[in-house]
Amino acid sequence: MSFLEATAVNGGPGRWSAEVAEGWGIFDITNGGYLMAIATRAMANESEGRDLISVTGTFANPLSPGPVDVDVETLKRGRSLTTTRATLSRDDRPSLFVTGVSADHDRPANPITLALGGPPDLPSPEDCYRAMPSEDGPLPPPFVGKIDSRIHPDDVAATYGQQDSDPVIRGWFRLLDDEPLDSHGVVQAADAFQPAIFTSNSALGWTPTVELNVQIRNPAPNGWMACRFATRFIGGGMLEEDGEIWDEEGRLVALSRQLALVPL
Amino acid sequence: MSFLEATAVNGGPGRWSAEVAEGWGIFDITNGGYLMAIATRAMANESEGRDLISVTGTFANPLSPGPVDVDVETLKRGRSLTTTRATLSRDDRPSLFVTGVSADHDRPANPITLALGGPPDLPSPEDCYRAMPSEDGPLPPPFVGKIDSRIHPDDVAATYGQQDSDPVIRGWFRLLDDEPLDSHGVVQAADAFQPAIFTSNSALGWTPTVELNVQIRNPAPNGWMACRFATRFIGGGMLEEDGEIWDEEGRLVALSRQLALVPL
Repeated sequence: MSFLEATAVNGGPGRWSAEVAEGWGIFDITNGGYLMAIATRAMANESEGRDLISVTGTFANPLSPGPVDVDVETLKRGRSLTTTRATLSRDDRPSLFVTGVSADHDRPANPITLALGGPPDLPSPEDCYRAMPSEDGPLPPPFVGKIDSRIHPDDVAATYGQQDSDPVIRGWFRLLDDEPLDSHGVVQAADAFQPAIFTSNSALGWTPTVELNVQIRNPAPNGWMACRFATRFIGGGMLEEDGEIWDEEGRLVALSRQLALVPL
Repeated sequence: MSFLEATAVNGGPGRWSAEVAEGWGIFDITNGGYLMAIATRAMANESEGRDLISVTGTFANPLSPGPVDVDVETLKRGRSLTTTRATLSRDDRPSLFVTGVSADHDRPANPITLALGGPPDLPSPEDCYRAMPSEDGPLPPPFVGKIDSRIHPDDVAATYGQQDSDPVIRGWFRLLDDEPLDSHGVVQAADAFQPAIFTSNSALGWTPTVELNVQIRNPAPNGWMACRFATRFIGGGMLEEDGEIWDEEGRLVALSRQLALVPL
């Protein structure tokens, strides 16, 4: 099943139906980026052909595989931007709220560019570690078999547990069989790696995502995405995880920021 | 008029009324952080005494001074988190959509802390430049007279126009008369300085905010806030501005991220 099929939405406008596929998570908890991609696909269908430039998801309840509804509301149709909002729910119990802003991908853009920083320094995908689902334990989870991620050798311990370094995880991302990416695949990429804190000595385990924001600068990147996710501040029972996603030519594809709770 | 008064909301639950005060902006365009603070104050009234830990505002239409309504909807009341959503509008024309997550401020928190990075290195507030409204031009705008901000001397040109450096602006923030800060004052602090790109040689003028996210780690900080805002990536007609707000003891108060459009 392709990513396009796994995130397909039917029906609409207004209310869309979708099927949360088996195996896109850990235990019975579906990956947040995958759920967001289902929601953003419904939102994109109501964005007048415009591409998502920023989406923010707020997670309310974990969700197991099975049917879901996505209710989409257009908040604003502007000259250059469309703002939409979606609620992904099952049996009227909401699981995820998403707000998104879309713009014309091919709109004339200010030619000024700036990039203070660049992609992470990664060995080739072949020289990185490909995470595959464990056959006899929960980690790595089934989800990693649904995508093609290659982890920097220095950050591999993150796949299995904790190690002693700053909370950073770097690696390559693409969909299985190099399926072309779109905005929704970019949203998936922003939540495709283990939490960066798994690489640190912070002795933190499960950190449920409260919120995920993805700013999408390129809605249709090609090839491998070079990704870097890092946590800088843990405190008050919360942590952020900031992500950067780059294409093979070294152009920024997306910035992400997550807020996660640190369990007691 | 205090910040508390300038952001007061009345009525509720469900629908709150407020008055957007004169002078909290530039020309007839009210400051986005100030509008968000009105919305978050209404949201906090419906968050069961919990404090906002993250808010995301999506700006739809600029707003002049005058009466507004804030419609608040509770999306989830959970064991540890409350999720609310607000729409700030005038005559049913929406100006701002906000989603917020609240938690118990005094909840027992995981004691693990991490801080990779610290406050900006700032001269004392007395040795920084206090922005005051221009008496004969639009810049600095009336808004800067409603708060007490002190800009790092190296970044002062940002107040008047452009200079040749990376897009960074650093300075101190507090409310007038050192009025105590709460979550809503922190939201205001996240949008109280000139755009960081005004300090750069990017030749960019007005950059309308599309979205503003604020993660609040301390909802009641004391004294001066040491702030740093920076833009790293401009491209495709968009830029982000990331902010850090620290208290005088060097503890993180908030992280912010803005998405702004780069005009043609």
